[in-house]
Amino acid sequence: MRVLILGGDGYLGWPTAMELQRSGHDVCVVDNYLRRKIAQATDSEALMDNPRLPERTEIFAAKTNMKILYEEGDCCDFDFLNGVFERFGPDAVVHYAEQPSAPYSMIGFHEARLTLTNNLNSTFALIWAVLKQNRNCHIIKLGTMGEYGTPNIDIEEGWIEINHKGRSERFLYPRQAGSLYHTTKVLDTDLLWFYVRTYGIQVTDLMQGPVYGLSTDSADLDVRLAPNFHYDDIFGTVVNRFLVQAVAGIPLTVYGRGGQVRGYLNLRDTIRCIELAVENPAKKGELRILNQFTETFSVNQLAERVQRVGRGLGLDVNIQHVDNPRKEMEEHYYNPVRHGLLDLGLKPHFMTDEVLAVMIEKILQYRERIVPSRILPRVRWK
Amino acid sequence: MRVLILGGDGYLGWPTAMELQRSGHDVCVVDNYLRRKIAQATDSEALMDNPRLPERTEIFAAKTNMKILYEEGDCCDFDFLNGVFERFGPDAVVHYAEQPSAPYSMIGFHEARLTLTNNLNSTFALIWAVLKQNRNCHIIKLGTMGEYGTPNIDIEEGWIEINHKGRSERFLYPRQAGSLYHTTKVLDTDLLWFYVRTYGIQVTDLMQGPVYGLSTDSADLDVRLAPNFHYDDIFGTVVNRFLVQAVAGIPLTVYGRGGQVRGYLNLRDTIRCIELAVENPAKKGELRILNQFTETFSVNQLAERVQRVGRGLGLDVNIQHVDNPRKEMEEHYYNPVRHGLLDLGLKPHFMTDEVLAVMIEKILQYRERIVPSRILPRVRWK
Repeated sequence: MRVLILGGDGYLGWPTAMELQRSGHDVCVVDNYLRRKIAQATDSEALMDNPRLPERTEIFAAKTNMKILYEEGDCCDFDFLNGVFERFGPDAVVHYAEQPSAPYSMIGFHEARLTLTNNLNSTFALIWAVLKQNRNCHIIKLGTMGEYGTPNIDIEEGWIEINHKGRSERFLYPRQAGSLYHTTKVLDTDLLWFYVRTYGIQVTDLMQGPVYGLSTDSADLDVRLAPNFHYDDIFGTVVNRFLVQAVAGIPLTVYGRGGQVRGYLNLRDTIRCIELAVENPAKKGELRILNQFTETFSVNQLAERVQRVGRGLGLDVNIQHVDNPRKEMEEHYYNPVRHGLLDLGLKPHFMTDEVLAVMIEKILQYRERIVPSRILPRVRWK
Repeated sequence: MRVLILGGDGYLGWPTAMELQRSGHDVCVVDNYLRRKIAQATDSEALMDNPRLPERTEIFAAKTNMKILYEEGDCCDFDFLNGVFERFGPDAVVHYAEQPSAPYSMIGFHEARLTLTNNLNSTFALIWAVLKQNRNCHIIKLGTMGEYGTPNIDIEEGWIEINHKGRSERFLYPRQAGSLYHTTKVLDTDLLWFYVRTYGIQVTDLMQGPVYGLSTDSADLDVRLAPNFHYDDIFGTVVNRFLVQAVAGIPLTVYGRGGQVRGYLNLRDTIRCIELAVENPAKKGELRILNQFTETFSVNQLAERVQRVGRGLGLDVNIQHVDNPRKEMEEHYYNPVRHGLLDLGLKPHFMTDEVLAVMIEKILQYRERIVPSRILPRVRWK
């Protein structure tokens, strides 16, 4: 299949592109390097140097003899995106082209507006490129488990049957997210659902939990093919950040009491989930929603695991609870369903001690590059 | 109180401004005449000539000796809106500044993008002006009953307690609207709710049904103070449109089978609802949602009423069912709650035969100005 990847320069976008290309799909990546610009502006650059896409695609071609196509541009610009559709003619589009940081979206007005505008408009331009060019093109949209928040009832897979005063109706599961970034993904889902039911397009919306990892079969071919590994408070997901803190000898910073539970998954599983979605498209007129995580942990459990594994490797790992910069419940009920991707064939890579140890060993090679000032929370939800 | 009215040139904005000013509030209206531009571009101009705001405020001042302030500008432009806040210092803001037409939002890409961008960004700029200038300023946002769509369960007043697998949680009532315009109001509600619960601002979100009417105490002082009365397929609400069709001798165009039920209200009640919301603000950290309509009718019932009243006045009124240009259920369950505004003291003006007759008499004075080509549906949900 011909698969277009929007946000192909990202932590998930680039590894996805390589694995899909190696699975036999024809891949084209699109990016305008917005995340790199924000990372630079906020002093939040990734641990390793990651070449830009023209160089990455050449290195990948040299290693594999396979050509990933590349277009540079802004996915919010409909004319540009429509042109990409005309040139490439995708059967499926994986939409990662969103400002991905919750803390960034909470800095102030300009960052909030950029997040709202970029995320809504890229989704909107994509919907219209599909409407104008090929209504059978399958949209695979990255949502987030954070759309659901932490309700006091079980989290279903996107939809819920509500029984009320003796009658019943199936609805999108009600969503209330903890940051503006997460809220833009709620708006994306609302927007996609409108266009799905009105025009019969086909969409998979993946409610993904925080991802960890820096290794995939293709990324391991050459260090210059590695994903952008962030450990800062702006872009770094919690597991990646804790592992870097363990290596740097900085106490693991648990926000607040640490009872916040979330669903996590390995980078390898993210890619496999995308692949499964590409190869098993949603039906015409279907908004298929899949909860994309493999296991749940509290922040305290994560910190304890990283501490145990780090100490096993001879590192001096401590844990400290810091004032929670976010507005979130620190103890709560959390029971999310996850059937859809397992039913499609996902075989999870769980977060074993060995997986964490291998990550720590890799990060140790970059110890000198760690900038401690990037780790403590610099943004508060006030 | 100092009340800022965004979209003060509109069908509802201008009459609201006059009545609030006469009730003893200090009012400032803001508009950029977007609706007028769209009306001109789509050949959908109102029945009467309505002067622009500088002239309207002068006529109003001459009649009442009261000065409504006026600012011209785009409410999506944060710097402009923030400046208005600095100059006027509102205690409450009534937010009508949205592209208000469902059919317009369904014409094509450009109209859809304008609707999405304008409606989200005006709401967003308003939220941030409140955050920056005065967190105690009460936002009164016009939503729509259309946010709820036509679910098979009772429509509650904004919120619903969901019992699920032995546990329960209170959520925003799940929303799924029938046009992109209505969907932008769903997104507005999601956005407002995020900022309410995160920063403790105070918001009233009014889920309003279609409004009818062209008379208010102030509007009746001078014909040049009348609301912009639209009867076209783009901006005209169904009752106003049917009355004009009755006058023009054009059969009343019922879309599809005509079993679509909605909640309606008189223009006078819209204004009273706004006044009640202004004078009884939402609490800090509260998103108060009120369902704003006074009675429900099916489209068939409306057509029959207008026919009966029109015939009583000697008009030759027929009804024709036309192919439904919209995607909507034409027979459905509909049982929406409406307690909040009655509890605040609303005394409804119901749609009596006399009310309709008075409207017909008034429209008869403008019979020669009716442009029949504006009436039949020109936009299809395809």
